[in-house]
Amino acid sequence: MSDSPTDPLLALRRDLHRHPEPAWCEFYTTARIVEELDRIGVDDRYLGADALSVDDRMAVPDDATLDEWFQRALDAGADEDVLEHFEGGTTGAVAVLERGAGPTVGLRVDIDALPIEEADSDHDPAERGFRSENEGYMHACGHDAHATIGVGVLEAVKESDFSGTFKVFFQPAEERVGGGKAVAKGGHLDDVDYLFAVHVGLDHPTGEVVAGMGGFLAVSHLLAEFEGAPSHAGAEPNAGRNAVQAVGTAIQNLYAIPRHKDGATRVNAGRIGGGTTSNIVPAEAFVEGEVRGETTRLRDYMGEKAERVFHNAAEMHECEVELSTEGEAPSAESDQQLVDVVEDVAKHQPDVDHVLEHAALGGSEDATYLMQHVQKQGGLATYVGVGTDHPGGHHTATFDVDETSLDIGIDVLTDAVVETVERIP
Amino acid sequence: MSDSPTDPLLALRRDLHRHPEPAWCEFYTTARIVEELDRIGVDDRYLGADALSVDDRMAVPDDATLDEWFQRALDAGADEDVLEHFEGGTTGAVAVLERGAGPTVGLRVDIDALPIEEADSDHDPAERGFRSENEGYMHACGHDAHATIGVGVLEAVKESDFSGTFKVFFQPAEERVGGGKAVAKGGHLDDVDYLFAVHVGLDHPTGEVVAGMGGFLAVSHLLAEFEGAPSHAGAEPNAGRNAVQAVGTAIQNLYAIPRHKDGATRVNAGRIGGGTTSNIVPAEAFVEGEVRGETTRLRDYMGEKAERVFHNAAEMHECEVELSTEGEAPSAESDQQLVDVVEDVAKHQPDVDHVLEHAALGGSEDATYLMQHVQKQGGLATYVGVGTDHPGGHHTATFDVDETSLDIGIDVLTDAVVETVERIP
Amino acid sequence: MSDSPTDPLLALRRDLHRHPEPAWCEFYTTARIVEELDRIGVDDRYLGADALSVDDRMAVPDDATLDEWFQRALDAGADEDVLEHFEGGTTGAVAVLERGAGPTVGLRVDIDALPIEEADSDHDPAERGFRSENEGYMHACGHDAHATIGVGVLEAVKESDFSGTFKVFFQPAEERVGGGKAVAKGGHLDDVDYLFAVHVGLDHPTGEVVAGMGGFLAVSHLLAEFEGAPSHAGAEPNAGRNAVQAVGTAIQNLYAIPRHKDGATRVNAGRIGGGTTSNIVPAEAFVEGEVRGETTRLRDYMGEKAERVFHNAAEMHECEVELSTEGEAPSAESDQQLVDVVEDVAKHQPDVDHVLEHAALGGSEDATYLMQHVQKQGGLATYVGVGTDHPGGHHTATFDVDETSLDIGIDVLTDAVVETVERIP
Amino acid sequence: MSDSPTDPLLALRRDLHRHPEPAWCEFYTTARIVEELDRIGVDDRYLGADALSVDDRMAVPDDATLDEWFQRALDAGADEDVLEHFEGGTTGAVAVLERGAGPTVGLRVDIDALPIEEADSDHDPAERGFRSENEGYMHACGHDAHATIGVGVLEAVKESDFSGTFKVFFQPAEERVGGGKAVAKGGHLDDVDYLFAVHVGLDHPTGEVVAGMGGFLAVSHLLAEFEGAPSHAGAEPNAGRNAVQAVGTAIQNLYAIPRHKDGATRVNAGRIGGGTTSNIVPAEAFVEGEVRGETTRLRDYMGEKAERVFHNAAEMHECEVELSTEGEAPSAESDQQLVDVVEDVAKHQPDVDHVLEHAALGGSEDATYLMQHVQKQGGLATYVGVGTDHPGGHHTATFDVDETSLDIGIDVLTDAVVETVERIP
Repeated sequence: MSDSPTDPLLALRRDLHRHPEPAWCEFYTTARIVEELDRIGVDDRYLGADALSVDDRMAVPDDATLDEWFQRALDAGADEDVLEHFEGGTTGAVAVLERGAGPTVGLRVDIDALPIEEADSDHDPAERGFRSENEGYMHACGHDAHATIGVGVLEAVKESDFSGTFKVFFQPAEERVGGGKAVAKGGHLDDVDYLFAVHVGLDHPTGEVVAGMGGFLAVSHLLAEFEGAPSHAGAEPNAGRNAVQAVGTAIQNLYAIPRHKDGATRVNAGRIGGGTTSNIVPAEAFVEGEVRGETTRLRDYMGEKAERVFHNAAEMHECEVELSTEGEAPSAESDQQLVDVVEDVAKHQPDVDHVLEHAALGGSEDATYLMQHVQKQGGLATYVGVGTDHPGGHHTATFDVDETSLDIGIDVLTDAVVETVERIP
Repeated sequence: MSDSPTDPLLALRRDLHRHPEPAWCEFYTTARIVEELDRIGVDDRYLGADALSVDDRMAVPDDATLDEWFQRALDAGADEDVLEHFEGGTTGAVAVLERGAGPTVGLRVDIDALPIEEADSDHDPAERGFRSENEGYMHACGHDAHATIGVGVLEAVKESDFSGTFKVFFQPAEERVGGGKAVAKGGHLDDVDYLFAVHVGLDHPTGEVVAGMGGFLAVSHLLAEFEGAPSHAGAEPNAGRNAVQAVGTAIQNLYAIPRHKDGATRVNAGRIGGGTTSNIVPAEAFVEGEVRGETTRLRDYMGEKAERVFHNAAEMHECEVELSTEGEAPSAESDQQLVDVVEDVAKHQPDVDHVLEHAALGGSEDATYLMQHVQKQGGLATYVGVGTDHPGGHHTATFDVDETSLDIGIDVLTDAVVETVERIP
Repeated sequence: MSDSPTDPLLALRRDLHRHPEPAWCEFYTTARIVEELDRIGVDDRYLGADALSVDDRMAVPDDATLDEWFQRALDAGADEDVLEHFEGGTTGAVAVLERGAGPTVGLRVDIDALPIEEADSDHDPAERGFRSENEGYMHACGHDAHATIGVGVLEAVKESDFSGTFKVFFQPAEERVGGGKAVAKGGHLDDVDYLFAVHVGLDHPTGEVVAGMGGFLAVSHLLAEFEGAPSHAGAEPNAGRNAVQAVGTAIQNLYAIPRHKDGATRVNAGRIGGGTTSNIVPAEAFVEGEVRGETTRLRDYMGEKAERVFHNAAEMHECEVELSTEGEAPSAESDQQLVDVVEDVAKHQPDVDHVLEHAALGGSEDATYLMQHVQKQGGLATYVGVGTDHPGGHHTATFDVDETSLDIGIDVLTDAVVETVERIP
Repeated sequence: MSDSPTDPLLALRRDLHRHPEPAWCEFYTTARIVEELDRIGVDDRYLGADALSVDDRMAVPDDATLDEWFQRALDAGADEDVLEHFEGGTTGAVAVLERGAGPTVGLRVDIDALPIEEADSDHDPAERGFRSENEGYMHACGHDAHATIGVGVLEAVKESDFSGTFKVFFQPAEERVGGGKAVAKGGHLDDVDYLFAVHVGLDHPTGEVVAGMGGFLAVSHLLAEFEGAPSHAGAEPNAGRNAVQAVGTAIQNLYAIPRHKDGATRVNAGRIGGGTTSNIVPAEAFVEGEVRGETTRLRDYMGEKAERVFHNAAEMHECEVELSTEGEAPSAESDQQLVDVVEDVAKHQPDVDHVLEHAALGGSEDATYLMQHVQKQGGLATYVGVGTDHPGGHHTATFDVDETSLDIGIDVLTDAVVETVERIP
């Protein structure tokens, strides 16, 4: 792939990078992908509510936020007719190639961005003119590259001698683990025999490929909303029911949930807020957090303990607490048969220096919902890592991908899709 | 006072009630007061930077907030030429009547509102059409009445046979105890011999007057801003420096500062916030709070303990913390000689049923800065309570004043101003 | 009183000082008092279970502790026949003088000591040979002086022309506020018309007398016993239910119970313990603490909040908690009629320099149970302060009384007893 | 081995079980072992200070405790002349067989017991008359079996055709990880070429053997002693410096030390205490705890965070804190060459059903000090697990060993010692 914006995929990646959008607000992003689908020509495309199970979406923002991002997409020039499919936060798309007899193969890529302010110096996108135009948001985890790889593989499979059905799932809201379940239950995965998911980077350099990532931490995102009663902090300190005290107690005890003998667990109170002003006993406060576990069972251990902490912190300070799950993903494993295929095709790519059979993600991913769905109906799945030199770490202001790795990803996955059908019919 | 908006003072009170503005954003409010000063005719008026010591303002909001409220005042029809005096958050005014030989008497009223959403049913202002038009803000402590009383007394003193100089101080930012110091140091108080301050309500019913309020709690508003370092909560939980954990520790230990044998103390973590999203170890967080004491010394005891808590909570979690004082007021006492005058004139008012020599405020007030300033230069001061039936408590969504108490306040204070000069020359 | 141990009262005070005994273990102390009663000759004496309501005792130690102190009293030479009355921790005595027609007057003195190690240098009792022989325990609050004053007044009243009935209540367990209720309900107070209680020192110097102490803080001593489950901290950190975590949460939130607008409150977690060794998740832990309030209602506010904290701290960590009240006292007020009598007789004592009508105790006292009991049945009560120069503060290792104040106390109280009957018949 | 106390090893095990002694108090235990050494006849025996590096002992109890257990050993009939070697808590012994030319092989067994009260029903030792006679202490981790195995292997090696030097290290204070370092530095390990350590049970049933245990958690036992200042909780709550508040803050934040991406960590506040009585602000308090890590580096991560917590908890409450390390052990790995030997000989034992090459301990052990010492000088080490059916878990009141496993342990280790010299000369 030439380092020039005349290349349509490179142009796509940079355009997406300029327009990072958070979970369920990928209006411009999905519309831009649809534009590419139309350029390539696909047999079927399913948009928005037709692509996923609307009721299984998690972490959907409020209407005001959705409206704001919708308007921003319009202002940025997205096609109004296409955008209509996504109203109310039903973003995402499924593209289908019907290529004759044979099994159904799927590729899942995620498309959302993060609430991180992008670096504005010593940073390639800034210097070459495609820094984020949505201030405070950034493609800091490479989903712009993922979407581009999805489009690239679609195009390449179309041009290959692949026989069967090929579907690309452009999934929203991965960063909030809010979209995987909705896509998994959207119906289009029900006939998929083999599923590939892909992630760039993860501290693997350009030229390195991981055939089967593992070590996904199961995760739940939790929102705890405390409600007490206000009072004047000087005149009637005893008359309030202090939601901030409840939050203080909760934070202390959340992080103190005992470690578990069976493996790694995680907990984080990632965002807090509460109260109105310094002289009012605060009546409302919240903790937005998450728990994880090396297995789904360990995640649930943490989740049950966290609920206990929230409930008793509330009751201790005579507050009410409402708990909701804002996003969730199980753990999952890559299937060895598909891992073998990927390992093999990767070794034959000229730009691939190094192939790892397995590596651990050490984080969470709701691709696991899709992987489990396929595996439960007897299919196979693997999660492929495509190395890319990245100057800053994932989720930091200086993250960037080495664009030469886009072609590597497209080539490896295209070959894997084609070869899988030939080898494991 | 007739219950009709044709009465200019009643109209003023309701107009101010419709346009509640928070600390240092009293653009519409001050402009509206200036309009009244012009109607009445005063000998001098000092606006904005001419009325106070700009550098001694505390709790001034950021420029974006100031700009937003400035624009809102313009939109609401405030006089643009007058508004210019207040640019950058230098609101407030001093009005002066020069009435021949004699001492200088001052009256201080405060004019700001609170970030509280006003009730929209079972609430007089809602039913009679003067509910807050600035959604989320409300005159929930009667400062609309105070400003009106200030104007009313000015008019009445002008029409009286008062001899001397009379000044009314329309002070901004009392709710944040951010304006008292700036007005006290603004120069216009330096020649004041006798100072009156006034507050309506405080659980005293219409017809009751308190000649000398005491029991002011000295107060400091504190802002603690914690800065740590972010990391991915799943992949590198150990790599962050967690500002929310620091806040959790701080909250727990702030409220646990030991009680003091010498009298009442208070502490509140009124507003907290921090972090960005559930899967990032939060790198930034803040606590906006306050400490109080029955005496300035007790307030300082609490303040020193609170600083110790903040510093060690930060260090425990490897964060930095920056502390700033966002507003402050000492304690103060009313002088018996002025109390006697008020008590006496109040007893002679036909609408006053009951006069209390003393009562305790049980809260804080930065009128104390002005009182101390006058007392230090040998003058006298008293803080007068004017009862008013109020359906909801102070600082609640259903607070309202009984408008018949406006005349009582005006009459008592006018007589007190006139009598003081006669009795204590 | 001469500074020589040949004086029986001085000898008594020093003997008691040498044998400090904690709550309900005043075996030697009561036996020694009985010896004095026999020396003086009283009309009736009630010992142990005959002197108080056994079931209303609070803070009674366990049998092993009682047995140990009982044995220690025997070893120190206490009369075995007398000691038998106190078995099981029913210490204390009531002495009665029947002196013809007239009202019944009572005097209450307390007799227990504290778990404090007495200073062994720069300390009069150490230098003059009557330092505590019960290592780790000490008369650090002057109850040795109180018992002596009780005996002294008894003797003096017997020799006076007092007409009526006079009772001295030698009350155990005041330091744990565990004995007042039992004595109040013991029956002997039911016919008392006038009650005096007495305390030495309290920062009042020798020669100063307080006719009516007030400002008693109502108090409850609480014991919270947490029970969880142990597990190996390395192998199964998740399997335990951690009682020490529950205690940590409880401590933090106990001290953070909001201050109350109505007046002073107190809270203390005075003693904690828990766990067995460093590598076992601790299954048992306790907090021994107290709450106080300026009024009984404020004490109850604190008590209810504390219970809520304990319950939720336990439940948060999946522990059980058992709460018990280990001692308790209400607030009370001295009656002005008796205060007037004391003030008057004190002013006529040659060694009294200064008489205060009122002063605040600022602590708690279960004499309030006795005072309330008498007041409820229509009688009068006052709590008298007898100044004494004390080198160290109350409850410190260097506390001591100025023995010249013993006579002052005896004289003032004797005159008050006699005069009361004459003046308020 | 017959199930009869006439068998000397069985009698030994039961005698040791009846006399459990905690760290550095193994007076009776070591003396009893010496008795066996004399029965068997060894070439050299080193006792107490001659067996270990006195200054490297950790977690040594205070003199009063040492004296009490010393006396108890005397009372239980231990040989006074032998006991003298252990005065001051220098327990333990090294036994040496000089058997001609050849390498030096070591076997390390630990000998101390735990502060756990042994079950008195439904428990074999209780029913068969060898329940603990030291109430509150118990061999709840099988060290009675370990000591017996050590003696048994010594006897069997003596009777074998082993050529070389064989040393058995009877190590004190393993439960407090306080003895390993002292024995490792005692000099007798300096010429050891091959080292075996052994543990029974660990959830492996009778008949199962683990050739090389791994997964030792590195550990540090910490003692944090807080010192503040007392004050009367009612009269001067502000005057104290509250050590219990410091402990509360420390507990909450200790357990909340962030998990680490590199592997398992542990933390426990296993024992706490503080304060004197409910109405005194507590001036002294302590936390006895531990941190662990899957690697020594992870242990140190936890240790540094814990120190930070302790220091800031102290400073927050104006207390001093003194930290000391009460016991410590690194992590270690078994060497494959020795693992192979053990695996092989175990497979040839008739009573061994199942041999595992590796298994994880999941706890800590200071045998790692000895293993590292040998490995650093070029030798080899392995830690052997000998299964035993145990009704209750380790460190619980109903733990017991299946005595038939003693012979298995002796046979496997004897063969391993003999074979090692033959195979890896």
